[in-house]
Amino acid sequence: MLNFDAERFLKIEKGAVALAAEIDAAAQRYVAEGIDSVFFLGTGGAAILMYPAAALLAERSRLKIFTERSAELVLMDHRSLGPRSLVVIPSLSGTTKESIAALDFCRARGARIVTLVGHADTPLGRSADRAFVNFAEDDTSSESFYIQGLLIAAALLKHRGEANLHEIVTPHLAQLPQALLAAKASFEPRAARLAETFRNEPYHIITGAGSAWPQAFYYGMCILEEMQWIRTRPVHASDFFHGTLELVEKGVSVILLKSEDEFRPLADRVEQFARQYTDKLTVIDPAEADLPGIPQAFRALISPVVLAAELERLSAHIEHLRNHPLTTRRYYKRVAY
Amino acid sequence: MLNFDAERFLKIEKGAVALAAEIDAAAQRYVAEGIDSVFFLGTGGAAILMYPAAALLAERSRLKIFTERSAELVLMDHRSLGPRSLVVIPSLSGTTKESIAALDFCRARGARIVTLVGHADTPLGRSADRAFVNFAEDDTSSESFYIQGLLIAAALLKHRGEANLHEIVTPHLAQLPQALLAAKASFEPRAARLAETFRNEPYHIITGAGSAWPQAFYYGMCILEEMQWIRTRPVHASDFFHGTLELVEKGVSVILLKSEDEFRPLADRVEQFARQYTDKLTVIDPAEADLPGIPQAFRALISPVVLAAELERLSAHIEHLRNHPLTTRRYYKRVAY
Repeated sequence: MLNFDAERFLKIEKGAVALAAEIDAAAQRYVAEGIDSVFFLGTGGAAILMYPAAALLAERSRLKIFTERSAELVLMDHRSLGPRSLVVIPSLSGTTKESIAALDFCRARGARIVTLVGHADTPLGRSADRAFVNFAEDDTSSESFYIQGLLIAAALLKHRGEANLHEIVTPHLAQLPQALLAAKASFEPRAARLAETFRNEPYHIITGAGSAWPQAFYYGMCILEEMQWIRTRPVHASDFFHGTLELVEKGVSVILLKSEDEFRPLADRVEQFARQYTDKLTVIDPAEADLPGIPQAFRALISPVVLAAELERLSAHIEHLRNHPLTTRRYYKRVAY
Repeated sequence: MLNFDAERFLKIEKGAVALAAEIDAAAQRYVAEGIDSVFFLGTGGAAILMYPAAALLAERSRLKIFTERSAELVLMDHRSLGPRSLVVIPSLSGTTKESIAALDFCRARGARIVTLVGHADTPLGRSADRAFVNFAEDDTSSESFYIQGLLIAAALLKHRGEANLHEIVTPHLAQLPQALLAAKASFEPRAARLAETFRNEPYHIITGAGSAWPQAFYYGMCILEEMQWIRTRPVHASDFFHGTLELVEKGVSVILLKSEDEFRPLADRVEQFARQYTDKLTVIDPAEADLPGIPQAFRALISPVVLAAELERLSAHIEHLRNHPLTTRRYYKRVAY
């Protein structure tokens, strides 16, 4: 695989998986202490990577679940944020300034604070009630954060007796890193072909539903826009039919990320539409991935993880073909704002 | 004002305002009956127009507040949707098929269902427990729906004793339609100039924070994309700094909608950034609107209403200059999907 270190990838995803017991124990304690709400915060991409977990909990738990942008939360007088709140803040660097401000704000309201960081010895690592630490780098952090989010959701649902996701997740969790590696390897040739197709494409509509929607949003904003300066229009597969569809015509790129969850029919509807009206439809379907050792019920929970693993391969080929490193920025960490 | 019927506009917005007493009485009853959750549904643009009300309630109430897309909700087994849920479904036509499916789904779960429709004798008008009816047309419906959403939020907060928004809203509500008309009239010359600027612009980043963000999302998707086939990138002012900013350079249009609420600093941050890096920044600020009879505290609640009123003027000039009627579609109501 192009510019890829399999051992490093496996180590990082095994690191995420290895947090399962700690996360379970922490969730047990928080549930016993009577939390009534969970705030998934974070900033930019890291916040988005918590959306699948937040959606699972919002649907299946009676806990109040909030996904607030850090920069907005600190300007609110949020009635549900208090001593019975669990706040989850992911930040790979552990230094994101909006997230530090959010942590301080939530601390002052008496909330319990968990951070997901790459290094313990960072502002967000040190200031949390509990920091889950898993070193990752930019190209491996999406999977790691998605996995940690899923573990948090499954553990909270288990200890509240609201759903048995942990029974689906736990038995096969150890196989997940290797399965994701296999998915990457088998996607590699297609990633190379897609990168050829996309190298001069100036604009993509990128869409998905269910647990694939956060990954469509993330990949459009945090990879194609931020790291490749390519215009995108991330749009949920349901919203697509209420505006953005009118932009579709021959020559317009539509990237559709499918999911293996119950919301797949929404993506199917986009596919049926787009096939008729553009010659540039790209469907990336985690159902086509070979995931050794992962049963169907588990696959339904990890579509965004599989998509992130595959799309990282696409990014590797795109940066290479476009001669535009993923680390190049006009503004981020270059100018003050 | 170009292609504008002031009497029709006033009649429609007065119709929305006139629902206040009915909405208050209904909210009183639902609170007395012990609702524990509110689902703001709807499909596409109508759903977005409920976001300011949902955000007010999520922040200030202990009710569980959900903004689900209709097409996804019906695929969920949502634990919080049941006999103690109030479901609010806006649909001007009263015939939106995803919304009808959502209504039937929520009915089967025992929820109380309120619809906001343009005509009582429509599927969504007839099937609700309570239909609030206010005839509107496409170019006047945003303000009407925003107002009805605000009335619902204020009434629920009042009867639950959680916030006194009604004390801010009620005394000056009757003046709102005329104030919005004044805002339109004073924005008209700028709308004409902006339309000139935008007529050949192929792409806009459109952003905002707080209660202006739903209007940015709505205007990008449902007007510029759907009705003018112009590419947009609606992005929240906080997310803007975590990806989309890298697309900004000289020649790239950024439309920033400000708000008069507590989230205004997030928009200020975008303004300060964008002023330095593009020569095509457009700031539309409801604080500049002359709103006779509307005190500051009320203004802080109605930024999206004022923005919608002003932007409708922009749309009127854009369709005229581009010779592209707002009603022209490639697909909507023309092909099956």
